[in-house]
Amino acid sequence: MARSAFGPAQAADSLDRLRERRPRVHCITNSVAEAFTANVLLAAGAVPSMTTDPAEVPHFVGGADALLVNLGTLDECRRAAIDAALDRVDRDGRPWALDPVFVDRSPPRLELALKLVSRRPHVVRANRAETGALFEAGAEDEAVLSRAKSLGLTLAVTGDTDLVTDGERVVRIANGHAFMSLITAAGCAATALLAGFLAVERDPLAAAVACLAVVGIAGELAGGAARGPGSFVPAFLDRLHSVEPEDILNHARIA
Amino acid sequence: MARSAFGPAQAADSLDRLRERRPRVHCITNSVAEAFTANVLLAAGAVPSMTTDPAEVPHFVGGADALLVNLGTLDECRRAAIDAALDRVDRDGRPWALDPVFVDRSPPRLELALKLVSRRPHVVRANRAETGALFEAGAEDEAVLSRAKSLGLTLAVTGDTDLVTDGERVVRIANGHAFMSLITAAGCAATALLAGFLAVERDPLAAAVACLAVVGIAGELAGGAARGPGSFVPAFLDRLHSVEPEDILNHARIA
Amino acid sequence: MARSAFGPAQAADSLDRLRERRPRVHCITNSVAEAFTANVLLAAGAVPSMTTDPAEVPHFVGGADALLVNLGTLDECRRAAIDAALDRVDRDGRPWALDPVFVDRSPPRLELALKLVSRRPHVVRANRAETGALFEAGAEDEAVLSRAKSLGLTLAVTGDTDLVTDGERVVRIANGHAFMSLITAAGCAATALLAGFLAVERDPLAAAVACLAVVGIAGELAGGAARGPGSFVPAFLDRLHSVEPEDILNHARIA
Repeated sequence: MARSAFGPAQAADSLDRLRERRPRVHCITNSVAEAFTANVLLAAGAVPSMTTDPAEVPHFVGGADALLVNLGTLDECRRAAIDAALDRVDRDGRPWALDPVFVDRSPPRLELALKLVSRRPHVVRANRAETGALFEAGAEDEAVLSRAKSLGLTLAVTGDTDLVTDGERVVRIANGHAFMSLITAAGCAATALLAGFLAVERDPLAAAVACLAVVGIAGELAGGAARGPGSFVPAFLDRLHSVEPEDILNHARIA
Repeated sequence: MARSAFGPAQAADSLDRLRERRPRVHCITNSVAEAFTANVLLAAGAVPSMTTDPAEVPHFVGGADALLVNLGTLDECRRAAIDAALDRVDRDGRPWALDPVFVDRSPPRLELALKLVSRRPHVVRANRAETGALFEAGAEDEAVLSRAKSLGLTLAVTGDTDLVTDGERVVRIANGHAFMSLITAAGCAATALLAGFLAVERDPLAAAVACLAVVGIAGELAGGAARGPGSFVPAFLDRLHSVEPEDILNHARIA
Repeated sequence: MARSAFGPAQAADSLDRLRERRPRVHCITNSVAEAFTANVLLAAGAVPSMTTDPAEVPHFVGGADALLVNLGTLDECRRAAIDAALDRVDRDGRPWALDPVFVDRSPPRLELALKLVSRRPHVVRANRAETGALFEAGAEDEAVLSRAKSLGLTLAVTGDTDLVTDGERVVRIANGHAFMSLITAAGCAATALLAGFLAVERDPLAAAVACLAVVGIAGELAGGAARGPGSFVPAFLDRLHSVEPEDILNHARIA
């Protein structure tokens, strides 16, 4: 099979490198998502840490290969931790991903998210509603593309079909399973894993495509065997751990 | 089958409406229960949000159809969030449910719970020990009934057989499975789902009966197939997602 | 089979007593580990509580049989809670276990951990890297033994083979499964259960050996049947609930 820049072969290759290098991903994430996110990172081959104490965060981030900033269950501690973490990744030149979860539901969160976008995350991963609130560009792919271009960001907009763009290039991934929207923290965990892919893949667009393809394919394979959203969770983690390059090549729907 | 006000048919009907309307339930709940609670709400057909930041809570509650206040893992943030959330539900006239978890273990929590009871939750769901501590009425059904009447509250006391009363009417539900007491947060998640039923069923007594019957039946069906408390969790979520009106009619033990 | 002081028969006997007495274990632990830890305690036969509010912690600890202090996701609230909890266990003479999770990644955490070690936990459970950071004694068994002796502590160093020593006696446990390092909070939950064993077994060395053997055997039996780290979690909890004295006698590798 021919290798294209953002095709299945590149996604499979990125996954191989993730498993080999086992990047450390420090996650400042919401309390609902923490355990599942840690299990997703471990199953895929990365090493999570999760502390939110502002005094400790620079040490954890300093020893990590990438950072996730997720805006769920914000509190004073997490707000201060985000600042401390971003100062450290800036200093060290490490990649980070932003997940502006539920930014469409809370004006104070939107305000914080806009500030964080100005600190130039390597990728912003959000659903359509969140993208709409944050970039006033949710509904139309053209608008998303235009905003990515003007901001100089890579945006990953997830949904039935995922859209990834850096303002120049556009890639769509059509993998996934309906049960993924019936479990909590599927999107949050995907963004954490995306931070892990940023540690092994310099091009943010390629990292986002690889991550969403891997997550979507693991979800598809797991969903076919699950009896509902409950049994989907262990099946998804099993598949994330066992998914082979061949599965990526056979199942990826990347266009 | 004849429809009675609080029988299986009404419970099945309430579940149908929950799945159709997909109410948003904002949960201020303990950190142990958050992920399981979110998954229970999603599996049953509701949409959870969980933030506890006092500045954000009014926005989330303002966009929600019902509120859960659960007193586990209290901290400054959650205490302030509860106040902010109740001010908002009062203003908007939305229903809310109180779960005074472990109120029998902590005098400061008991004090807060008593204040919250005076703000008139639509339903208080607790086990026998918690009900005893909160209402000095745990052991005797007559005492629970009398306290519900004097306070003008609907009380749902869960255990081997659940008791629901608004001081006038009394309903007992005898569904459930022993594994439910061997997993964390089963009661916490049930109260969250009860808040969801309050959004689609105006009569708090009927909402509580429907919720406890649905949860108990999903638990029974899951428990029969599980090998222990570990495999019970995914099986319970699967069943909560797939339970049909016919299952309610066939299995409900409501008296 | 002959009973030796720290052999399989003693481990099986400790588990029997745990299930019979159902000790209450108050856990001050990180938010990532809370739900899994609670489920591990429940599956094994203990009763968890988890609050971290400094005003409530003395009441919960006062009603508990043992305490876990885990240093993950430290914040102001948890730091104050640890102090309040230790004052109470000191007063009541209850046992407690310390889990200095990721102490090798954070100097402020190391500083706190050293202070807590001076308050004489009954057992410190850590992996090799954490033990190395805390006691400058990670790599060599002789060094661990010597530090346990000089500090008068029981140390449980977990890894492929677990090492438990009080400075006089040394016991090694070679049970476990590779999936245990691919799920979050396996070590954290083991330390919580170890606190539960301290409530039913006065000799900290015997409590640690029993706990690590039970956890390792449940892990082994579960791992053999699981398809990956996802299905390992429910299988592990099922086994922890169902593991019989005979399984301990047949599978323990204690030397």
